Amino acid sequence: MPVGTAGTVKAVPQDILEDLGAQIILGNTYHLYLRPGHELVRKLGGLHRFMSWERALLTDSGGFQVFSLSELRKVKEEGVSFRSHLDGTSHLFTPERSMEIQIALGADIVMAFDECTEHPAERERARSSMEMTLRWAKRSKDCFEAHKHEVPWGDRVIGRTEEPVSAQPGAAAVHDSTTKPTTPALFGIVQGGMYEDLRRESAERTIELDFPGYAIGGLSVGESRARTMEMIAAVLEILPKDKPRYVMGVGYPEEIVQYAAMGVDMMDCVLPTRAARHGLLFTSEGRINIKNARYAQDQGPADPKCACRVCSRYTRAYLRHLFVSAEPLAGVLNTVHNLAFYLDTMRSVRHAITLGDLSGILSGSVSLT
Amino acid sequence: MPVGTAGTVKAVPQDILEDLGAQIILGNTYHLYLRPGHELVRKLGGLHRFMSWERALLTDSGGFQVFSLSELRKVKEEGVSFRSHLDGTSHLFTPERSMEIQIALGADIVMAFDECTEHPAERERARSSMEMTLRWAKRSKDCFEAHKHEVPWGDRVIGRTEEPVSAQPGAAAVHDSTTKPTTPALFGIVQGGMYEDLRRESAERTIELDFPGYAIGGLSVGESRARTMEMIAAVLEILPKDKPRYVMGVGYPEEIVQYAAMGVDMMDCVLPTRAARHGLLFTSEGRINIKNARYAQDQGPADPKCACRVCSRYTRAYLRHLFVSAEPLAGVLNTVHNLAFYLDTMRSVRHAITLGDLSGILSGSVSLT
Repeated sequence: MPVGTAGTVKAVPQDILEDLGAQIILGNTYHLYLRPGHELVRKLGGLHRFMSWERALLTDSGGFQVFSLSELRKVKEEGVSFRSHLDGTSHLFTPERSMEIQIALGADIVMAFDECTEHPAERERARSSMEMTLRWAKRSKDCFEAHKHEVPWGDRVIGRTEEPVSAQPGAAAVHDSTTKPTTPALFGIVQGGMYEDLRRESAERTIELDFPGYAIGGLSVGESRARTMEMIAAVLEILPKDKPRYVMGVGYPEEIVQYAAMGVDMMDCVLPTRAARHGLLFTSEGRINIKNARYAQDQGPADPKCACRVCSRYTRAYLRHLFVSAEPLAGVLNTVHNLAFYLDTMRSVRHAITLGDLSGILSGSVSLT
Repeated sequence: MPVGTAGTVKAVPQDILEDLGAQIILGNTYHLYLRPGHELVRKLGGLHRFMSWERALLTDSGGFQVFSLSELRKVKEEGVSFRSHLDGTSHLFTPERSMEIQIALGADIVMAFDECTEHPAERERARSSMEMTLRWAKRSKDCFEAHKHEVPWGDRVIGRTEEPVSAQPGAAAVHDSTTKPTTPALFGIVQGGMYEDLRRESAERTIELDFPGYAIGGLSVGESRARTMEMIAAVLEILPKDKPRYVMGVGYPEEIVQYAAMGVDMMDCVLPTRAARHGLLFTSEGRINIKNARYAQDQGPADPKCACRVCSRYTRAYLRHLFVSAEPLAGVLNTVHNLAFYLDTMRSVRHAITLGDLSGILSGSVSLT
């Protein structure tokens, strides 16, 4: 899932996201709550309509952003008080408040309010944090069930376009007439730090709360990649296979292929979009830093195996020129290519799953694009 | 003509410029000479190929940018020495150097090297500056004629696309098989400060040098709009009607309509693109500053009479949110709308000319879009 923090996947117009085949994007509750504000978004018909995005939207709980961005954060049983990174004003996020905000935004998938355990954390700290997340999960669910019908979808005519949702390519998978949701879905989040037994216990007790999908949070916070995989593997043994399994905040292209092969269904990461704005391009030949002087006269595309609108039209020499000249088009084109690379990677994974053989993609012998 | 200073119309991908119907864009010789350098652009096949733009390109002479951007500028008979605004390095632009650079870039329309007379200027200063521009025009033409076949067009297969130029909508007007140029065209530039008689003399003596098109430079440099119009009117009486007449660096939408009605064929201006990046949108209802709080809940499009891809999809509320959040998409969408407004304005003018009646557009009773 491309990340669209503040109601926009940075630098990319929505029609290009559609062309790229993005079926679902992520919005950040913390950012949208602070600006433009969830009440404004609700009043204007919800986030789909506000940003003119007919396909699926997932919002995070706000917990991770408070953890990573806000100032003077203070965690209590009730919730988390913090000061805005924008203007220093004081705010309180609770499970109930997170549900209220996410329902006002009108996401298709709402995330339970959790605490992202810091890394490293002692075992007892990881356990108590996990217990808090479980209590908050229960409160999230109770509040969500009481208010889930209050989404501002209305007749779900999104933005200024008048085509029915199902007429959009890719949208059918998410919103066709048989599966179109009338309320959002709430996913639970597994925590437990870097302790396998705590992760298993967190998974089991989250499943007891009965969610239609489960996320694994608190990973990619500084631990080794081997440790990340151990935690994912331990939790996947327990999470039901017939419900979506979502690893939050990962990862590099080779990682997301591995996790998909392990049984992960959903992932999100700012990497393709954020790296693009720093001139880092993902390609079938590996990562390249487009500002490098070696590309100044390179008339090839960013990725010779990529068929995206950027690789079909522009050279590395031009992309380098845009980047070193700090031209705004650099961010647009680099982001479009990186998203194409990620979405193509996942398309290849889905294709391999359909064929029943992921070995080629995992060994690298089958091109990711 | 949208302005594409450094080989990019800021924030807008080339395919969107094509969709907007831009038939020709302008590149700045000063910027492209400094970065990425005209020799690099020549080596990579010229600016069309470098930036993947099959339609027409015009480059300015570099004189105005040296005048407005560089440091320690010193004008001599030979040319202008200056220091780069990027790194302080010393450079010399002469008429011959300007021709060499513009031919290396491979523009379809090359501008003679001129001196933009400062404003205000005493009569004698304006005369001596005008005389210098006339001597430089002769040197520009002599050099251009000797080297115009050295453009790096090759077979004019531009960028990474393989469609013939004439297959692109809009391109036919500029490059169809009957009019496709084999060399660029050099335009002369009329100067003369704010003195009508000097302007007339400059026009007459520039015409004696015999160019395929004529520009009026040195306007919109701080004088009143009435004065600008007087100067344009005086020069248009003299310039041949069967050759393109180009007023450089103008203007607001209502101005370009007036100038077109007076007989001006071409104009360029950074206004639609630069204003867009500052949140100023041109609409059929006048100019609006999208960051204004009054638009926070405005569910209408930027311009209710505009059919561009931005007005068809996004609300003022969303555009305001993007702008106040400093999101890169703000620059993209605002620029696309402003260019659509300008290009629609000129389309309306051309339509009215075809019908033989510009009165409706001039009086404002006929919508510009």
